[in-house]
Amino acid sequence: MTEQLTGLVAVDAGGTSTRTVVLDPAGHCLGYAVAGSSNPVAVGPETAAASVAQSVRVALEKARIPSTATRLVVLAMAGAGSPSVSAEVSSRLADVGLEAPVVFESDLLATYFSGTHRADGYAVISGTGAGAIRVEQGRQVAVADGLGWLLGDEGSGFWIGHRVVRAALADLDGRGPATELTPLLLGRLGVAAPSDPTDREPILALVRALYAGPPVRLADHARLAFEVDGDMTADRILDAAAAALERTLDAVRSPTVSGPVVLGGGILGRGDKLVDRLVGARGAAEVHVVADGVLGVCVLALRRTGTTVDAAAFQRLATSLAAVR
Amino acid sequence: MTEQLTGLVAVDAGGTSTRTVVLDPAGHCLGYAVAGSSNPVAVGPETAAASVAQSVRVALEKARIPSTATRLVVLAMAGAGSPSVSAEVSSRLADVGLEAPVVFESDLLATYFSGTHRADGYAVISGTGAGAIRVEQGRQVAVADGLGWLLGDEGSGFWIGHRVVRAALADLDGRGPATELTPLLLGRLGVAAPSDPTDREPILALVRALYAGPPVRLADHARLAFEVDGDMTADRILDAAAAALERTLDAVRSPTVSGPVVLGGGILGRGDKLVDRLVGARGAAEVHVVADGVLGVCVLALRRTGTTVDAAAFQRLATSLAAVR
Repeated sequence: MTEQLTGLVAVDAGGTSTRTVVLDPAGHCLGYAVAGSSNPVAVGPETAAASVAQSVRVALEKARIPSTATRLVVLAMAGAGSPSVSAEVSSRLADVGLEAPVVFESDLLATYFSGTHRADGYAVISGTGAGAIRVEQGRQVAVADGLGWLLGDEGSGFWIGHRVVRAALADLDGRGPATELTPLLLGRLGVAAPSDPTDREPILALVRALYAGPPVRLADHARLAFEVDGDMTADRILDAAAAALERTLDAVRSPTVSGPVVLGGGILGRGDKLVDRLVGARGAAEVHVVADGVLGVCVLALRRTGTTVDAAAFQRLATSLAAVR
Repeated sequence: MTEQLTGLVAVDAGGTSTRTVVLDPAGHCLGYAVAGSSNPVAVGPETAAASVAQSVRVALEKARIPSTATRLVVLAMAGAGSPSVSAEVSSRLADVGLEAPVVFESDLLATYFSGTHRADGYAVISGTGAGAIRVEQGRQVAVADGLGWLLGDEGSGFWIGHRVVRAALADLDGRGPATELTPLLLGRLGVAAPSDPTDREPILALVRALYAGPPVRLADHARLAFEVDGDMTADRILDAAAAALERTLDAVRSPTVSGPVVLGGGILGRGDKLVDRLVGARGAAEVHVVADGVLGVCVLALRRTGTTVDAAAFQRLATSLAAVR
């Protein structure tokens, strides 16, 4: 059993889903599983921990590794390692027979290492939230934004969705220019268009529908800004989002660290419109766009066990991960 | 008792306080009282109704009018006349022996008639929320904004306070320019300034403090934008607030109604900085700034009983109200 006691569990605990990989210390991915949201802010620590435990259990089954043979669990999570969340997660993992040490890592750092093996560089994340980090010698040494929907997260899904919704309401209200976002939003929420310019019922129906959910759900409407073409309002929102993310990246820049820049999160992963704006602004810098943080958590797990992940090892790991997903 | 059966009760039911005037049909103010908040969204329908009942009871006592001798109650309230709120208010007023008909009016219209007797014109309100109306023949015929802190209220106290707080956090985070708003906000919330540029604890302390309250409380920090002089960030926030209120007013403008424009609400009442920006933009239009809607509810009560309020009557009413406040 000794060779099995080296199973590593890498968990990318995200707001949309929880993705777990079981790998060996040589970087061979053996099993992969997905469960529901494990963002403790969004679904609560108990549900988050249950999602983690479920995906870990299934990934171990697929890898044919007994839970008792696991050496280390590395878990990337937003707001990683608050005491209440880590206690809940450790308890749930013990319930599925897993007693290996659990290490929490920043979800931003996992995103970074999903795009590059290099020990120095930057990551910019825009999903429901947004932030940027600088990485030196494999560690997250500076962070900007990530302050949540009310106080920061500039250029995030909430930030874009909030502007989309406000622009549509301003259009209906006569306070703002006409935009294609308005019929899209009305259609999405099943609200009839105004019968004449003084008909205020569509505004009131939108307001009722949008206040009925938690504010952060306005992020759901960010996609509308990507769905229209040549709409000045949508273009201005995306221009402003790119400029905001650029400011956030600039806030963590150091003259001694040139790059690469890894772009991640559900909004930066949504087509090219925002990425092109950001890459255009960055000029010739090396840029990688990643869909999630799974590969990066695997890199972090290997680094934790003393394995060097160079360019060749990173490529092998990516290929091996793709084979089990 | 017949002459006493003509007592009119006018209630300005606001978020900060509830102000009630008892007057006779000739426009003589007989009694005045103040109670706590009666914004049903902020404090709930029960507390709002209790504040209304308390201020009415005390104002009737001061006027030496028995509650049974009251002819009409006119009540100006945000979101006036939702069925649950009006039932609660009527029930509480019956508890204090008052069985006269209760009529709900728009708080925006009460603000308008606090500034002018004229039957046609506009009002722009910026307090915690913000909106504008057009008035024709004494009735509110068009409204813009007033859509609440998350979806509208552009140029309101929340809107300004939100920008103040975000600007201070962006300053601390290296994402935005230095601003005098930052030390003011840190001081207000009892958070120590950063010990060096990499010290992130003040950011996290501000974030904790600001997320601890309901979002709408960010309006409390709007005042900081008025307290600094020559700060580019604060000036830009106030310029943008004035431009937003201007757009809201433009959305209700009609070529057949020239003015006057009444400016009201706690933010427009806060010194001249925002009013000057708005008045400057409006050019030579007749502008009145009012502190609250009390006088306007009295005008509405008189109009409801068939009394014409001309310029002379409006002036007498204002003088009479000032004498009892």
